[in-house]
Amino acid sequence: MLRSCAARLRTCGARPANPGAAWRLFSSEKVVHKDYALPNPSWSKDLRLRFDQFMKKCEDGSWKRIPSHRQNTSPLLQDFQNRFLDPKFMKEEKMSKAQKFTRSFEVGLGFEYVMFFNGAEKRVVCFFQGGPHLQGLPGFVHGGAIATIIDITTGACVNISEGIAMTANLNINYKRPIPLCSVVVLNSQLHKIEGRKHFVSCTVQSNDEKTLHAEAAALFIKLDPDKRLT
Amino acid sequence: MLRSCAARLRTCGARPANPGAAWRLFSSEKVVHKDYALPNPSWSKDLRLRFDQFMKKCEDGSWKRIPSHRQNTSPLLQDFQNRFLDPKFMKEEKMSKAQKFTRSFEVGLGFEYVMFFNGAEKRVVCFFQGGPHLQGLPGFVHGGAIATIIDITTGACVNISEGIAMTANLNINYKRPIPLCSVVVLNSQLHKIEGRKHFVSCTVQSNDEKTLHAEAAALFIKLDPDKRLT
Repeated sequence: MLRSCAARLRTCGARPANPGAAWRLFSSEKVVHKDYALPNPSWSKDLRLRFDQFMKKCEDGSWKRIPSHRQNTSPLLQDFQNRFLDPKFMKEEKMSKAQKFTRSFEVGLGFEYVMFFNGAEKRVVCFFQGGPHLQGLPGFVHGGAIATIIDITTGACVNISEGIAMTANLNINYKRPIPLCSVVVLNSQLHKIEGRKHFVSCTVQSNDEKTLHAEAAALFIKLDPDKRLT
Repeated sequence: MLRSCAARLRTCGARPANPGAAWRLFSSEKVVHKDYALPNPSWSKDLRLRFDQFMKKCEDGSWKRIPSHRQNTSPLLQDFQNRFLDPKFMKEEKMSKAQKFTRSFEVGLGFEYVMFFNGAEKRVVCFFQGGPHLQGLPGFVHGGAIATIIDITTGACVNISEGIAMTANLNINYKRPIPLCSVVVLNSQLHKIEGRKHFVSCTVQSNDEKTLHAEAAALFIKLDPDKRLT
């Protein structure tokens, strides 16, 4: 069941005619939310070049760009909601304002990123530009923001290929600080599965790949479909 | 030098007459920025009760509330900027928009928290309410947001008592997901120093302390005062 959802997620990356805009299919009245994993004016030349480079790699089907929204639009997350959460909980007022953490900033100020997935190799590559509202020590991206982009990149590696899982352990070695607004490259690899345990590694390098900013190991546990979380 | 900065930081928590508001000392034209570690209308009853409880503990001086701003107002961070960053870098346009990651959200939508420091015990307690823009899986606080609040709580434990240090390792075990908008309690303890290495532990529990949401170990390295970071 979860595998079939993952397959559906992989097919939902179709790009609207006006990319990046929220739009409505009048025939079905279905709202299609803005896809944030597409270039916008805040993207630096480095980030655009990386995007173009990987979009070319997508042409033969070996890589796929992962769309990204503020709300839970993907079948995979809708399925999670239906299976693991009490419907009453989802109707609470606070939930009406809920937005995905990494997409809750104004354009250019927070997490600007695009991820690409290689199904055969179970790899995700993420290009990340950390905006000025992610500051930790003056001039640098916050360690928590780095942990966040590592969490979603390693998480994507598991969720897309194997179905919904939650982070059980995240172990990060911070090597060199990341200057605000620079572009870094995350390379994540699912390398071992033991039952519901999924082991993923990740590196964070500068765009020229000469500086290793961080390296991490993550453990994800696939959810037990018989248990609610609330 | 860094120790003396830490001492200055401990004394800069004076509360303005109109708490929470940005204000100006007309005599010196010095701008005093808004302190976000004070109650606001988004705080739940649980968070307010915890705040009041610990403000009482501050009365005998054993605990101190840690003020929190969007910009680098503390002498400790100004000192960091002067010592470790190239002045040209700080004049770049991007830096004019820089804001502390955990204070860059609108009131109630992101990280609402207050931290208290016990100097004698080298402990920091943080009360944290994760707003709806911190969502990870539907209904729950993002693992990256949890890593962030752990990073700043453990970081405060080192920075306030020992001077500026950067996160070198963060190892988090996620035990139970945190429902959006609930209040959790972080208990952080500096327990070992080896040269420039500072070892800190942290737990994240529900407000009733019955549920352990996460536990973490962090290693911070005090900066070498002879080296610039850019």
